[in-house]
Amino acid sequence: MADWNPALYRRFEDERTRPADELLARVPLTSATHVVDLGCGPGNSTELLVRRFPQAQVTGIDTSAAMLASARERLPGTAFEQGDIATWVPTVAPDLIYANAALQWVAWHETLVPRLFSLLAPGGVLAIQMPDNRQEPSHRLMRAVAGEAPWREPIGDADAVRTELATIGGYYDMLAREAAQVDVWHTVYQHVMPTAGSIVDWLRSTGLRPFLDPLNEELRASFLAEYERRIAEVYPERSDGNRLLAFPRMFIVAQRRPS
Amino acid sequence: MADWNPALYRRFEDERTRPADELLARVPLTSATHVVDLGCGPGNSTELLVRRFPQAQVTGIDTSAAMLASARERLPGTAFEQGDIATWVPTVAPDLIYANAALQWVAWHETLVPRLFSLLAPGGVLAIQMPDNRQEPSHRLMRAVAGEAPWREPIGDADAVRTELATIGGYYDMLAREAAQVDVWHTVYQHVMPTAGSIVDWLRSTGLRPFLDPLNEELRASFLAEYERRIAEVYPERSDGNRLLAFPRMFIVAQRRPS
Repeated sequence: MADWNPALYRRFEDERTRPADELLARVPLTSATHVVDLGCGPGNSTELLVRRFPQAQVTGIDTSAAMLASARERLPGTAFEQGDIATWVPTVAPDLIYANAALQWVAWHETLVPRLFSLLAPGGVLAIQMPDNRQEPSHRLMRAVAGEAPWREPIGDADAVRTELATIGGYYDMLAREAAQVDVWHTVYQHVMPTAGSIVDWLRSTGLRPFLDPLNEELRASFLAEYERRIAEVYPERSDGNRLLAFPRMFIVAQRRPS
Repeated sequence: MADWNPALYRRFEDERTRPADELLARVPLTSATHVVDLGCGPGNSTELLVRRFPQAQVTGIDTSAAMLASARERLPGTAFEQGDIATWVPTVAPDLIYANAALQWVAWHETLVPRLFSLLAPGGVLAIQMPDNRQEPSHRLMRAVAGEAPWREPIGDADAVRTELATIGGYYDMLAREAAQVDVWHTVYQHVMPTAGSIVDWLRSTGLRPFLDPLNEELRASFLAEYERRIAEVYPERSDGNRLLAFPRMFIVAQRRPS
């Protein structure tokens, strides 16, 4: 994929920061020395971690140079490093590994999630939030339009970029035997969007990226027009003229036993 | 129905207080003068309100004398009044009407919810949380067992006690035109339960009550045994021997425009 667009991603920052905040609220630590923000993006989640654990050494990790530059601008005093979550190994065992809206881009959760958990210090916490929206109309429509001419050939199997999540019970099973406690839940947000076009804008900065990247300008425009037409149908206007974008997210918080 | 059992209800107090806490966290008020806890139960939610708004006059309302007695014991300095939400009218327009796990027992939400909203002071907030679990296996199994002999006749239409919720978009529609902002969402908790029997215990203090109340001791015992047998089948043991009870709850937070 092309690099991320921090400005477009930040346009819905309040809505994107809320799950990060709610994930952090469930982390059962009163203090921490080493904290890692895996897939830190433009640093909005890192900022929450710095505020919650002002004494800790917080490190943000991301694959995107553009996102890291944006994060360094936001938090000049914090360490940001380019790295790939799939192979990342910390130099010091962290008290908190925090991965907000990141692991859905990384494959092999059955090995990845237990591996991340095993990297924690005793008593440490692994906190994960991932969008779980592949079965939502927004995402079914992406795949439907991408399966039609003239977009089908250039787009190919765009959907394969994103990892198929395990069930929520599956994540519990991966962690529960080794953990002191595992807390898993879903929240389905209903984002208030003024128009069908704003729903498309939201998705353009994340879920639509693998679909749009392979298209030339003309095909991209026609794809977005057709997609928006169908979005307008399945996300109807509410009583005040807005539309509600249902957005399910999965949360996992697991704590290691003290040594 | 018979009166509530505060001790049984409180047995899972941490799990029951979490949604109350998360509802309150989304109330966009920095201060309040008059706060009402509709359906306050044993006062666990009222305690959260008192802590959040220490300057406010907080009043708890409930139909149950047993619950009110339990609440008064917990919070001797707080006003608790017996009252029916369906017809309740405040003497002073509240800044916050907070109804945690209460309105699912009250009918006619299309008139009730806008009515409660209209009772608020300008800038005031209506905050509602309701279990939305009627389509969960736990509740489908209740109805299934209650439809069979020998329980069918004494139980009758126990399910009618509880109100059929509107859709989440439906609640948004009821409030959005009159409100400064409406925030609606679901959270599906996954409660970690040691045994199938503990899942049944959880439900005995709330959802099962209308099913159990009409039964004599013998029929109640046989109903619970059959119900637990089926619960054990659909809520399987996880990797650590526990079972996960999925519990969806709907949240609504609507703020009136300033005057």
